[in-house]
Amino acid sequence: MAATLDEVAQRAGVSKTTVSRVINNRGYISTKTRNRVQAAIDELNYHPNSVARSLLGKSTQLIGIIFPNTSNVFYAEMIEHIETRLFKRGYKTILCNSFNDPQKEVEYLKMLQGNQVDGIITGSLNENIAEYRKLTLPIVSFDRYLGNRIPTVSSDNFEGGQLAAAALIRGKVKRVLLISTSLSEMSPTDDRINAFAEKMEQQKITYKQINIPFQTSPTMKKMFIRDEIREFQPDGVMATDDATAMLVRYQLELLGKRVPQDVQVIGYDGTRFMQEAFPELSTIVQPIPDIAELLIELLIERIEDPEKELGKQYTLPVALYGGGTAGS
Amino acid sequence: MAATLDEVAQRAGVSKTTVSRVINNRGYISTKTRNRVQAAIDELNYHPNSVARSLLGKSTQLIGIIFPNTSNVFYAEMIEHIETRLFKRGYKTILCNSFNDPQKEVEYLKMLQGNQVDGIITGSLNENIAEYRKLTLPIVSFDRYLGNRIPTVSSDNFEGGQLAAAALIRGKVKRVLLISTSLSEMSPTDDRINAFAEKMEQQKITYKQINIPFQTSPTMKKMFIRDEIREFQPDGVMATDDATAMLVRYQLELLGKRVPQDVQVIGYDGTRFMQEAFPELSTIVQPIPDIAELLIELLIERIEDPEKELGKQYTLPVALYGGGTAGS
Repeated sequence: MAATLDEVAQRAGVSKTTVSRVINNRGYISTKTRNRVQAAIDELNYHPNSVARSLLGKSTQLIGIIFPNTSNVFYAEMIEHIETRLFKRGYKTILCNSFNDPQKEVEYLKMLQGNQVDGIITGSLNENIAEYRKLTLPIVSFDRYLGNRIPTVSSDNFEGGQLAAAALIRGKVKRVLLISTSLSEMSPTDDRINAFAEKMEQQKITYKQINIPFQTSPTMKKMFIRDEIREFQPDGVMATDDATAMLVRYQLELLGKRVPQDVQVIGYDGTRFMQEAFPELSTIVQPIPDIAELLIELLIERIEDPEKELGKQYTLPVALYGGGTAGS
Repeated sequence: MAATLDEVAQRAGVSKTTVSRVINNRGYISTKTRNRVQAAIDELNYHPNSVARSLLGKSTQLIGIIFPNTSNVFYAEMIEHIETRLFKRGYKTILCNSFNDPQKEVEYLKMLQGNQVDGIITGSLNENIAEYRKLTLPIVSFDRYLGNRIPTVSSDNFEGGQLAAAALIRGKVKRVLLISTSLSEMSPTDDRINAFAEKMEQQKITYKQINIPFQTSPTMKKMFIRDEIREFQPDGVMATDDATAMLVRYQLELLGKRVPQDVQVIGYDGTRFMQEAFPELSTIVQPIPDIAELLIELLIERIEDPEKELGKQYTLPVALYGGGTAGS
């Protein structure tokens, strides 16, 4: 049986109020009393019951986070930063992998509400989920507009697209393949593509844009990329994520083309993992720790003051990581 | 204000018991009544309060999962499989990144207990955390012995070490560098190294073993690897994880050595991500989905019947992924 507050008070020879004060770090308590209570807590292996506290109208200190999939390195790093920072501020993280399935996302939202989370951070890319607008909970969004009351944090996708284009232009490309893996019609990653295409047009460089849907299997994705390279014969390729850029690199190798001598390749995301595992890859770096920090900051502001006025859109800067697969 | 059970019952014109039956899918309810109740639930946007239910002695349906860090691709894939499968079985996942910090891990354990989780899956590699033995909660462990009552699921680290050694032996290596990144003195990955070393000795192949501690910064890790390669001049390298194998590959490239012609490289883990991003890497594949499934299966058996007899150790098979950086 778990120890109760009563038992701790009895063991320490103090009132329940005093134990509660020690636990919640409230009011004046002498060091001697504090130590005695702490000793009783340790001896009895007592844990304050968060569930009971939340029923007394206190917050659950639970935050739900919804992202498409943990196994995508970009989201994995984002989730790690979010969870670690939330924990430091006294919050626990309920993880949800939506796989961009609107039905699964709605189920998650219901579950999170049922568990009375204090707030939600969503980096999922499903649009038009009416559920979000019904929620009265504090919500912040990564890279996706969900409604006027929900602040969106993004990195500068337009700037990123321009930087990627500029790198290939410095490498004197003539025929560019632009591969997007955007998740839906109004994805924020569209800005990457639009900015990139604009630069190509300005420089009158021939380019072709293709889109590979999120659900495409790896084998299909590889075939698709190989066929496009064979047919279009690009001397430059930009992909809207690093994993796809790596697939391109490998298909080029199989086709006997050298990177960057024959074909230049630039990716997008710039995770720490990829930069350590394959530092050659030229890419655009999103500031993952800063994005995580800002999402949490905004969410906690809203939790602490539901009426707090917050901006609708926060945009953080990106940077070019030179690497060795693109540019002069 | 959130809708209550009372309001749903009133709106549907049925008793609270009937509403409760519909929600919990218990007892006979006519389709007509069920539809009426569901309509009332939808109109009022009612969500059964999990917190209140858990205080009534019902389970919270929360599971805590503790892993060193989400941003390690191996753990990221494991976490995705675990969360997705738990969700299908009606459980929610509280994510904890321990960073192999025993103090942080103890804080997590206290937090999880305070939130009355139904059970814990731990893949963290801290030993001697007495807290685990104090817990009366159902716990299952990945790759780490935590006590007689806690089942451990691993993949066959010994077999993995042998397969890696055999691949390099087929490639006719003469001087092998063995790089482990094990986290502690009694890490399960020691079996990989022991089995590998045993094979090397049988074949009378010169080998050197070095260990890079978990906390080493990427820059230090790179320097360390480069210096070892320069000094020892291996023609084969085995790393106990793929990320380190990729660092080795890059340092070899910087030193002007060709892989696999001059130096063969084999990694360990075989994540889906790495096999897609860099399919050249020869590696040992751990069956991540099967490990996740078995961890969940054992945990749920223990939750449903706390007296259930479970094995102490479950070992799943591994496989060699040929790739192109090692072997003949």
